[in-house]
Amino acid sequence: MFQTAELGQTVSKEDFERVSDELRTELLALQQDLRTADFPVIVVFAGVDGAGKGESVNLINEWMDPRWIVTQAYDEPSDEERERPPFWRFWRDLPPVGQIGLFQSCWYSRPILEHVHGQTGTAQFDEQMKRILAFEKMLAEDGTLILKFWMHLGKEAQKRRLKSLEKDPLQSWRVKKSDWRNWKLYDQFIATAERALQHTGTGKTRWIIVEGEDPRFRSLSVLTSLRDAIRKHLADRCQRAMAVAAQRAAQNAKRSAELVEVHDHRDAIEMAAAAEARHKGRRRKEPTATLTAEGSIRPRTVLDVLDMTQILTKADYDLALKQARADLAQLCRQAKERRISTLLVFEGVDAAGKGGSIRRLTAGLDARDYRVIPIAAPTDEERAHHYLWRFWRHLPRAGRVTVFDRSWYGRVLVERVEGFALVDEWMRAYAEINEFEEQLAQHGTVLVKFWIHITKDEQYRRFKERETIAYKKWKLTDEDWRNRANWEAYELAVNEMVERTGTRQAPWVLVEGNDKNHARIKILRTVCERLRERLALTTA
Amino acid sequence: MFQTAELGQTVSKEDFERVSDELRTELLALQQDLRTADFPVIVVFAGVDGAGKGESVNLINEWMDPRWIVTQAYDEPSDEERERPPFWRFWRDLPPVGQIGLFQSCWYSRPILEHVHGQTGTAQFDEQMKRILAFEKMLAEDGTLILKFWMHLGKEAQKRRLKSLEKDPLQSWRVKKSDWRNWKLYDQFIATAERALQHTGTGKTRWIIVEGEDPRFRSLSVLTSLRDAIRKHLADRCQRAMAVAAQRAAQNAKRSAELVEVHDHRDAIEMAAAAEARHKGRRRKEPTATLTAEGSIRPRTVLDVLDMTQILTKADYDLALKQARADLAQLCRQAKERRISTLLVFEGVDAAGKGGSIRRLTAGLDARDYRVIPIAAPTDEERAHHYLWRFWRHLPRAGRVTVFDRSWYGRVLVERVEGFALVDEWMRAYAEINEFEEQLAQHGTVLVKFWIHITKDEQYRRFKERETIAYKKWKLTDEDWRNRANWEAYELAVNEMVERTGTRQAPWVLVEGNDKNHARIKILRTVCERLRERLALTTA
Repeated sequence: MFQTAELGQTVSKEDFERVSDELRTELLALQQDLRTADFPVIVVFAGVDGAGKGESVNLINEWMDPRWIVTQAYDEPSDEERERPPFWRFWRDLPPVGQIGLFQSCWYSRPILEHVHGQTGTAQFDEQMKRILAFEKMLAEDGTLILKFWMHLGKEAQKRRLKSLEKDPLQSWRVKKSDWRNWKLYDQFIATAERALQHTGTGKTRWIIVEGEDPRFRSLSVLTSLRDAIRKHLADRCQRAMAVAAQRAAQNAKRSAELVEVHDHRDAIEMAAAAEARHKGRRRKEPTATLTAEGSIRPRTVLDVLDMTQILTKADYDLALKQARADLAQLCRQAKERRISTLLVFEGVDAAGKGGSIRRLTAGLDARDYRVIPIAAPTDEERAHHYLWRFWRHLPRAGRVTVFDRSWYGRVLVERVEGFALVDEWMRAYAEINEFEEQLAQHGTVLVKFWIHITKDEQYRRFKERETIAYKKWKLTDEDWRNRANWEAYELAVNEMVERTGTRQAPWVLVEGNDKNHARIKILRTVCERLRERLALTTA
Repeated sequence: MFQTAELGQTVSKEDFERVSDELRTELLALQQDLRTADFPVIVVFAGVDGAGKGESVNLINEWMDPRWIVTQAYDEPSDEERERPPFWRFWRDLPPVGQIGLFQSCWYSRPILEHVHGQTGTAQFDEQMKRILAFEKMLAEDGTLILKFWMHLGKEAQKRRLKSLEKDPLQSWRVKKSDWRNWKLYDQFIATAERALQHTGTGKTRWIIVEGEDPRFRSLSVLTSLRDAIRKHLADRCQRAMAVAAQRAAQNAKRSAELVEVHDHRDAIEMAAAAEARHKGRRRKEPTATLTAEGSIRPRTVLDVLDMTQILTKADYDLALKQARADLAQLCRQAKERRISTLLVFEGVDAAGKGGSIRRLTAGLDARDYRVIPIAAPTDEERAHHYLWRFWRHLPRAGRVTVFDRSWYGRVLVERVEGFALVDEWMRAYAEINEFEEQLAQHGTVLVKFWIHITKDEQYRRFKERETIAYKKWKLTDEDWRNRANWEAYELAVNEMVERTGTRQAPWVLVEGNDKNHARIKILRTVCERLRERLALTTA
């Protein structure tokens, strides 16, 4: 794999100077174009010590405009970093669109070194490479240009490099004892590196192997690769932007047509039925099969089988609430002591009672120990990153509770139904979300996901109530009525969400929300149960 | 001080319910207004345990829209927090404009408890209160509405409260042994609290003392105070906005007039002189006194006395660079071992050579240990905070180096000269900056501030050079030429900056920048010197 990087390739000073001016100008021009583009660039430097990783980073900073470059290098994780899944530190450093992130000793560094020193077996190493590949693929599919340079030196070349550094009195500090120790492990290191590169070098995330001995050759290799990659990616994204615009126009046209033809009269019929049901003073039970707008049978969803008639009386509720809260408080204190983090996700249609449930839950907790993160419109820093970035940045510290009022599932719910995300974007999201939640699970986080469900007439009743109660009025917006028009589409989206992301580690809890008392107690008890399970697991 | 909060005041259930609906509606309406306002709200809850701090926080979250409320409570600092000055954790949690931040056990908590337990003396405690007052005043002057509630219980009332909690089997966990220990210290606690409130309760940051025994009385007190304060502040800010608009218009009119009348012909004259000087092939020496645009004698600035003719030959430079870099690398490694952080600030006119100097400096360092933060236009998250917020968020961890390419001094340089900041804003900034830098110094951070100076003709020469060298062209923008037109105003601003912020702990280093070699070596050597001093201090 590395033979091509042990050929002794060099570039003469004259040649280098002849091309460098133009190359520099091109790079700067591309960087200007990049600033208004819709993607970030990630450049990973890995490889043999002494092969010019740091020098390449410095050179890029020197030749290009450092204002739009972020340089990152990683040492031992801090305790804030250790208290989250390992990728948290990388997520928080990702460059925003229009900028270049240079990453040194990043996600490859630890896995490779640990494997070389025999701290991890091959299976675990492969697992880590799979995770890295998923991470890079996710970013690449979001548009990020990923360039990975493996800076190489042959065994003898590395020895020469270390010796020459040692001889120079001003540079000798650079050579540490560990460098020579590592050099002795050169063969294992290269074997591991090969394995890493094979696992993670597919398609959009392929590796560029650079012979690192001659500074001019290596610099030209890195910089021309960078230039060509940015240039090509700019062109590709431009083409894609046009394709997306066309696709979006088609999607919208289709949706408009559907809305005009069908929704109007169907909605009117349903409203009438709902009114009738209300009039009769009973909760309408959903039929077992419905016709879709097109007249075909609508598949039964997980929501259809919920028993929406469940009720809890005020007296039972009060008692249960008191008990469940005391339990929760105790369990949370135990979890805190054992540094187990909890992450609660609340999803549900408008007026399903997410906010109220969350407040009943947090009322028994110490404000020091939990945070509620309401997910509204993203800030511009958030918009300039992958959509999961804003959730990564809010992951709880060890032993704390974070409650998400709406969450990353927006991607496969509202963004899907309203057409904010393209079909391939939300389709891809299921896998991305599973990957994300798997990392949480592996880190030991307790993750509970609630979908609070209410029937369409119950929502209507609550909307009307909000219109009349002054202090609830602000909760109701035009958007809510608009979302309501897509009721069926939401149901199908929820069904698919539960199907695809309800994993063993992170199952969905479907909450019958027509009766608020029932919903709140079910939620509280579920959280207690999950905490109890997790705590039992740790003692065992 | 607290007698007024030990009167046994209560509110009946009927009275509470009669007013609560309207109050709730008013609060929500105000919150909507707040969302588009130009300031954030900070609500601090402090006081006696059991007096309803947590309950008040929960109630506000319940009655208002939690999407625009951030609740913060503080525990032991994490290591990332401990590695920065104590206020770093509070800065990173400040709410953006339009939002409400609820702060529990925050900046008052530790100082008060430490004093009660005799860990700090009165002088140190007073010092801490002074710092808090400066912090709150800074935010208040920036427009933040600060409300501080002292939730109070008399000694007997607290006893009753603890006992009643203990009796309730579901609540008893809330009472810890430390609560009774603290109760025994009630008198010391109250004495300390009084001192704290006296020191920090002036003008815009005054305290509201609330009797905490009756939940309804306490809730109404807090919520009506909150309502009234937000309402008044909205009105005040609205009036102020109009005044500011008028002031800004006047400032602009004055500036335009000056520009039209004076700048044009004066600039032409100066340009001719510069061209002549260049033609003669010598570096023009600045005259000892110059006439201002108005014809009065321009005061001599610190920049006028710099010897701008200093030169370092290529050979001397190469040797010195090698030596200084090796020194720096060694000193930085020592500083890292001893966990001493370094913060380097680079300021200077356009084309002064900031970027080049920074790269010469960082080239010898390990990418893991330093970060360069270029200060360009703020993001919208940054714009929504106090102008110092964006610098606090980038403070280095223990043992690391952070380099600011432009800095918080923009406030008293470009923002002053270009009129982006109002006169009282940049005037205030000197004290705010000194306060900020004092915290860095007390934390033990090595802070070095460089002003790289070049003469006006040297800048002209460099601009022209940039126009011709392709890969330097991007560096030159129209803005640069515009900034140049304000040369004299910048000089006066620099002079005042050095005068007012050149403190003993954080002196300015003025660098003669006409010769790049000289400037780079002077900078490198200065950083080494300062590090050496600091390291000697720690060993001693």
